[in-house]
Amino acid sequence: MSDTMRAAVVPEAGGDFELVERDVPDPDPDEVRIAVEACGICHSDVFAKEGTYPGISYPHVPGHEIAGRVDAVGDRVTAWAEGDRVGAGWHGGHCFTCEPCRRGNFLQCENGEITGITFDGGYAEYVTVPSEAVAAVPDDLDAADAAPLLCAGVTTFNALRNSDARPGDLVAVQGVGGLGHLGLQYAHAAGYETVAISRSPDKEDLARSLGADHFVNAAETDPAERLQALGGARVVLATAPSSDAISSVVGGMGIDGSVVVVGVPGAPIEVDANTLVGTRGGVEGWASGHARDSQDTLEFSALRDVRPEIETFPLDDVAAAYERMIENEARFRVVLEP
Amino acid sequence: MSDTMRAAVVPEAGGDFELVERDVPDPDPDEVRIAVEACGICHSDVFAKEGTYPGISYPHVPGHEIAGRVDAVGDRVTAWAEGDRVGAGWHGGHCFTCEPCRRGNFLQCENGEITGITFDGGYAEYVTVPSEAVAAVPDDLDAADAAPLLCAGVTTFNALRNSDARPGDLVAVQGVGGLGHLGLQYAHAAGYETVAISRSPDKEDLARSLGADHFVNAAETDPAERLQALGGARVVLATAPSSDAISSVVGGMGIDGSVVVVGVPGAPIEVDANTLVGTRGGVEGWASGHARDSQDTLEFSALRDVRPEIETFPLDDVAAAYERMIENEARFRVVLEP
Amino acid sequence: MSDTMRAAVVPEAGGDFELVERDVPDPDPDEVRIAVEACGICHSDVFAKEGTYPGISYPHVPGHEIAGRVDAVGDRVTAWAEGDRVGAGWHGGHCFTCEPCRRGNFLQCENGEITGITFDGGYAEYVTVPSEAVAAVPDDLDAADAAPLLCAGVTTFNALRNSDARPGDLVAVQGVGGLGHLGLQYAHAAGYETVAISRSPDKEDLARSLGADHFVNAAETDPAERLQALGGARVVLATAPSSDAISSVVGGMGIDGSVVVVGVPGAPIEVDANTLVGTRGGVEGWASGHARDSQDTLEFSALRDVRPEIETFPLDDVAAAYERMIENEARFRVVLEP
Amino acid sequence: MSDTMRAAVVPEAGGDFELVERDVPDPDPDEVRIAVEACGICHSDVFAKEGTYPGISYPHVPGHEIAGRVDAVGDRVTAWAEGDRVGAGWHGGHCFTCEPCRRGNFLQCENGEITGITFDGGYAEYVTVPSEAVAAVPDDLDAADAAPLLCAGVTTFNALRNSDARPGDLVAVQGVGGLGHLGLQYAHAAGYETVAISRSPDKEDLARSLGADHFVNAAETDPAERLQALGGARVVLATAPSSDAISSVVGGMGIDGSVVVVGVPGAPIEVDANTLVGTRGGVEGWASGHARDSQDTLEFSALRDVRPEIETFPLDDVAAAYERMIENEARFRVVLEP
Repeated sequence: MSDTMRAAVVPEAGGDFELVERDVPDPDPDEVRIAVEACGICHSDVFAKEGTYPGISYPHVPGHEIAGRVDAVGDRVTAWAEGDRVGAGWHGGHCFTCEPCRRGNFLQCENGEITGITFDGGYAEYVTVPSEAVAAVPDDLDAADAAPLLCAGVTTFNALRNSDARPGDLVAVQGVGGLGHLGLQYAHAAGYETVAISRSPDKEDLARSLGADHFVNAAETDPAERLQALGGARVVLATAPSSDAISSVVGGMGIDGSVVVVGVPGAPIEVDANTLVGTRGGVEGWASGHARDSQDTLEFSALRDVRPEIETFPLDDVAAAYERMIENEARFRVVLEP
Repeated sequence: MSDTMRAAVVPEAGGDFELVERDVPDPDPDEVRIAVEACGICHSDVFAKEGTYPGISYPHVPGHEIAGRVDAVGDRVTAWAEGDRVGAGWHGGHCFTCEPCRRGNFLQCENGEITGITFDGGYAEYVTVPSEAVAAVPDDLDAADAAPLLCAGVTTFNALRNSDARPGDLVAVQGVGGLGHLGLQYAHAAGYETVAISRSPDKEDLARSLGADHFVNAAETDPAERLQALGGARVVLATAPSSDAISSVVGGMGIDGSVVVVGVPGAPIEVDANTLVGTRGGVEGWASGHARDSQDTLEFSALRDVRPEIETFPLDDVAAAYERMIENEARFRVVLEP
Repeated sequence: MSDTMRAAVVPEAGGDFELVERDVPDPDPDEVRIAVEACGICHSDVFAKEGTYPGISYPHVPGHEIAGRVDAVGDRVTAWAEGDRVGAGWHGGHCFTCEPCRRGNFLQCENGEITGITFDGGYAEYVTVPSEAVAAVPDDLDAADAAPLLCAGVTTFNALRNSDARPGDLVAVQGVGGLGHLGLQYAHAAGYETVAISRSPDKEDLARSLGADHFVNAAETDPAERLQALGGARVVLATAPSSDAISSVVGGMGIDGSVVVVGVPGAPIEVDANTLVGTRGGVEGWASGHARDSQDTLEFSALRDVRPEIETFPLDDVAAAYERMIENEARFRVVLEP
Repeated sequence: MSDTMRAAVVPEAGGDFELVERDVPDPDPDEVRIAVEACGICHSDVFAKEGTYPGISYPHVPGHEIAGRVDAVGDRVTAWAEGDRVGAGWHGGHCFTCEPCRRGNFLQCENGEITGITFDGGYAEYVTVPSEAVAAVPDDLDAADAAPLLCAGVTTFNALRNSDARPGDLVAVQGVGGLGHLGLQYAHAAGYETVAISRSPDKEDLARSLGADHFVNAAETDPAERLQALGGARVVLATAPSSDAISSVVGGMGIDGSVVVVGVPGAPIEVDANTLVGTRGGVEGWASGHARDSQDTLEFSALRDVRPEIETFPLDDVAAAYERMIENEARFRVVLEP
């Protein structure tokens, strides 16, 4: 390999992308270096580009949906070897010693790293990540498909599989976008009676092709009423980061139902207490997953043929690719191929 | 027994109590007649007095915290016999045939009766209630103590025992009043590290004597911050029906925490989504229990010596007793003894 | 309708089937009369034929996998109306008043009825069953397909959906027969990584076509070792009523695994305590379901196209049909069509 | 401190204890050195003395119930500092990288260490243990009391708090010995209706003083029948490592009950499948806990005044102390004070 690599760098908070030549980073003793084959662009990359998240030092390389091959490993790494197909997502490592870590709650680590935020991410030919943040990628999953699954995929799959929904239960996915189009596939593959909720009636065909048994046009129909007419939802996976949208589905919960929030809105969610008490239900949150959760997501996606809908771009076109994703023009995820 | 009885009747919605002589009611085939020994006054009796709940016909007898003895049973009743010590609470019977009932979710029955609301309640010498709404009262529990446990008791005990809290977990009870003073005793008896949250610092000694390991004066200290300093709450039992109060403790949840709402405020609860996602936590509701839940509550209270703090009044003083309860002057529950 | 009907009667314990003309039974006030369109034959019908279950009075009509149409309803029945497509399974009604019933555990009712055991079953043109034992049959499910799902179907579906298995978890179905061939379909439809375990290697193709991702020939391979090689099972659904077979898979559990027994062997199951402690796992039991569980099963089967493999016979051929089922010659369930 | 220390050494598998002078060990980079104040003797120390567990190298120091103070820490240790009151139990560290560790299942680590087995234990003045195996000891808990809680305590407390039992549920503790006398205290402190089962009627008073609400003399009464008469157990904590004893309580489970095995017998447990299916119950296992579980146990014990009954011995008397423990003559745990 060469000693230098190309990377898409944000020079300062809010600056424009610059393609630069850099030294290939050496892995620390507990790190793995990945030769990036694909890196998804996520809405959360706005944090890295605009500097709206704490702990970013500039110039900075965004990117936390990384798939590629292990290129080198640090001295203390035993779990991975050169050539392994691997990936990394938002959760970029944990300390193993804080209170949450001692209980195995790695995602809530008090000293947790975030890929592409607290260290340089995957908009580059190479990236180094802590060993514990690495997930194996199954052979029959392309790197470009695996990349968005490491964030949008694990977020929706992990939220659903850890919910109270059982096969046959009514599960709604609110929003048919980057997260929602995966959520629908996972919900169907898990045997839920699946409802797609969207304000875009033109997404009905797509939603049904992804596994939705019902489609609710929220621009015309009250989604809560419609869910009640279907028997009440056991779970509503709320992928749209809108407080109003989330509040509007709380009334659609059935007995022991829950609204699981994975897209975080800025404003508070308004929750009617009568609904909570009447259903014994709740409004809950879920945040992606750790590396083993990501690996489970990839394995399940390979097993049951769940794939993201993606548009791919070369690294050179990073600015256009980023714009397309952030402006919600992509169907549904954008992937850079360095 | 005589053919007539005394009852405290509300002549019309919003009217004043009148003590009247009435025929003792005969039980229907599936009903039990109870000779009332004690009937608690609950804040929810405002619904019955003021007519702010659907399904009330006047003149009406309030009262859903009833303890006494079985006096007569309907033709089809096999579960109860004359002389049995029994009680009845808010849940006044279910249809057995609607969808929730078919799944055993009696409390969510679509045709459910409510004691003292959809039929005459316990502010009287006798009352008839559906057989399935009756709970046995343990021998070593006085009727006057049992009465409030059939509503305030089962609400808090059932919410706690069905929460995710385990022995040793941090559990906060928000509000030290009619519900809260029981919630503290149950939380302590269940082995939780128990926190009392109140805006009245003069309740600290009482709260500690009831089992609180910690006391948070919410008038001076941010309860969410204090709970986080204690490690984060696994459960906050929110007994005060105030949206602001409930919203103020959401930030006190630890990992996998929950705020369990049992006191229903009128205004929506505002919930910060970042807290939900960051903790994997939720804001949930719980509504009292069915008759077997009530019986469990009474049995547990007898076993572990949980008792309500009560003030007793003869039926003649119903107006004063009601006033004292509704004006929050009582410590903590008011019980009529017909 | 005519006043008489044909029924396949066992004249005495252990006697041969006789086809008789009988009065059509009138429903009691809480009963529903079903015009039988299909009635599955189950191994448990041996109890009814041979008299090896308590509570059977002869002459007796077996049959607890009943699908048909409501033909008449008792005076107190409101949940069903003439013409409704319905079914009934093993659980033949409950008392609503015993301790388990008060908690909603209808299946564990202390006074529970069993269809085709404690009252005459579905090997006949008409049958009466308690209203609470009736399940609705979806429009797009044939009566002949619905019938076995009301026993073999609900047993496997209900056991799986109430297990701890989540989508993507490794779930093994032990035995590819009447229960197992349904269990495989449900496991696949629920998104589990599905393993079929059988001593008949010729069933591999079938098992894979029903959704098995892996096939273990237990005649040649130690199933516990093979499951460990696959990562350890979260759930093993043990459908074969053989203690040795069940004991042989206990060692295949992964962490937090369970062996769920639905086929009850006569001899005790031998369980190695080291495995239990090492995995935090368990050996558990599950017994079919109540009528709403059955209805869920039918709805799920219609939604996800799960169907039993059946052989159908006219009522005249009851003796041959019964023989074929009991001798394990059928693939996989036998259905009478009166 | 001096450079040498006294230690009770087993010279070879099956050999007699020898008190020797040794160099004080230096902690590795990820280790903590503890100045031992108390070390409990556990039945499992037989493995270390007799060499019946894999991975022991002789001469060897047993002891996995260690309480003391941090005396020195390795270069990479940040979680602990000199002077901290700490302890260590059976779980002696984990690798963080195997599959179970990646999911936070440290106790099932494929490369797990065991204190006093895979490395020298606490029958000595000093011991070094991996940092992740260390638990903090609360100020108000004596070292001699804390020591047995780090094995016998965490095993019973962790099994109970992770069971399905809720406050008020019937929970039986089988065996009133080293584990059982702690299990009774924890069960009582958790609000369970607590049953002690023992073959020694002379332990009834003690059992009741520790919190038992009921006592079953298993030498005279069938414990399964008695548990059924009490309503059926939600949980039976089986502390006696006897297959026959465990098998004898399976029939005492109520609906959704479980027998949780923590004392591992050599012979298989015989389980009646009808009981499992009839109750929806299970026979399960539980193995102690990791360091944070141990710390929870200590914190709970301090909070709710749970203490082991102990007999203390100086290190010089190790042979007599060990004999007393292994011969079941102690009431109930034996603690060395180096």
